[in-house]
Amino acid sequence: MKIYEDRAAPNPRRVRVFLAEKGIADVEFVPVGIADGGILAPEFRRRNPLAQVPVLELDDGSCLSDSLAICRYFEYLQPEPNLFGAPGLDAARVEMWNRRMEFEIFWPIASVFRHLHPFFKGKHPQVPEFGEVSRAHAFKRLDWLDAELADGRPFIAGERYTVADITALCGIDFGRVSGIRIGERPHLARWYAAVSGRPSAKA
Amino acid sequence: MKIYEDRAAPNPRRVRVFLAEKGIADVEFVPVGIADGGILAPEFRRRNPLAQVPVLELDDGSCLSDSLAICRYFEYLQPEPNLFGAPGLDAARVEMWNRRMEFEIFWPIASVFRHLHPFFKGKHPQVPEFGEVSRAHAFKRLDWLDAELADGRPFIAGERYTVADITALCGIDFGRVSGIRIGERPHLARWYAAVSGRPSAKA
Repeated sequence: MKIYEDRAAPNPRRVRVFLAEKGIADVEFVPVGIADGGILAPEFRRRNPLAQVPVLELDDGSCLSDSLAICRYFEYLQPEPNLFGAPGLDAARVEMWNRRMEFEIFWPIASVFRHLHPFFKGKHPQVPEFGEVSRAHAFKRLDWLDAELADGRPFIAGERYTVADITALCGIDFGRVSGIRIGERPHLARWYAAVSGRPSAKA
Repeated sequence: MKIYEDRAAPNPRRVRVFLAEKGIADVEFVPVGIADGGILAPEFRRRNPLAQVPVLELDDGSCLSDSLAICRYFEYLQPEPNLFGAPGLDAARVEMWNRRMEFEIFWPIASVFRHLHPFFKGKHPQVPEFGEVSRAHAFKRLDWLDAELADGRPFIAGERYTVADITALCGIDFGRVSGIRIGERPHLARWYAAVSGRPSAKA
């Protein structure tokens, strides 16, 4: 198995952190550049016509693109420690929290970068006003998440570390390039210190 | 169990179609209005602080918000016919396709409505230029999906109807209010006729 990825991008990092938490180390990583247009090459587009990373190429040559689909496949290959929750209500709650982190935290933060950063100039139609709306929205959602964590629970979805923590961590860290930081949000800061102190955060 | 929802919104429809495909009929639906501000009432916000529908309230009073988390819980309660795929690579592929439908089809189409339609005036900061960028993006992605389906497969993720078809159907139908239609895309039109002809599409 090979994973095509760009180490500077936040979605491939989600997979790397996930694998680190699982203790899975026998996967080959192949760099594909976003900045240098490597993801637009026909050779890569055969793996993912949407020209996005990460992509997991299986030994039979078939490909899974999408960070979360890749994570879920590794959860199947090595179920424990489970990061998607135990089957049933627990898994549904993890799914809810992971999607909240994706839509309410990761996505607005990524939209600030996408619509305001010179990196995307000419690569993607930028609407700076939408970047600013996304920035305000991201800060509102960080306030909300801080209030959620005021109950003292150690992780986003409850007592255990899950994929929702990974999505939130990678989203929030990606905010750095756009000047989005946790700031004076004490509960979020407590969570962030714990999660980013895990060895997996360096993956 | 109760599902709080607004029948005019596309995310609650995903759950209704899912339940119809499962043949699950013993769930009570409670209307909560987006247009009349019902979702902003403190009573509803206790169920979902993000003020979004649908929300599934369990018999113990705890709540699952997020359409896909709710669907996954019902998949657990009644596994067959499975709509998330068989465990393993099949489920990972369904996840990939469902997420592609969500991010590449549903989300841009919803962004057109959100940023251009008078419905959201005063409810949400609108950036009309972003609405137009989203519209162009949505049409590009419909082209891509048409090309994907040119291989003749009956459903989005392959030979079987899955949650990815539900996400695509609800996204595309929601395009109606923004003038986004399938148009001259023959493969997509074939898929759409089949999927929207199922009894579940009326749910």
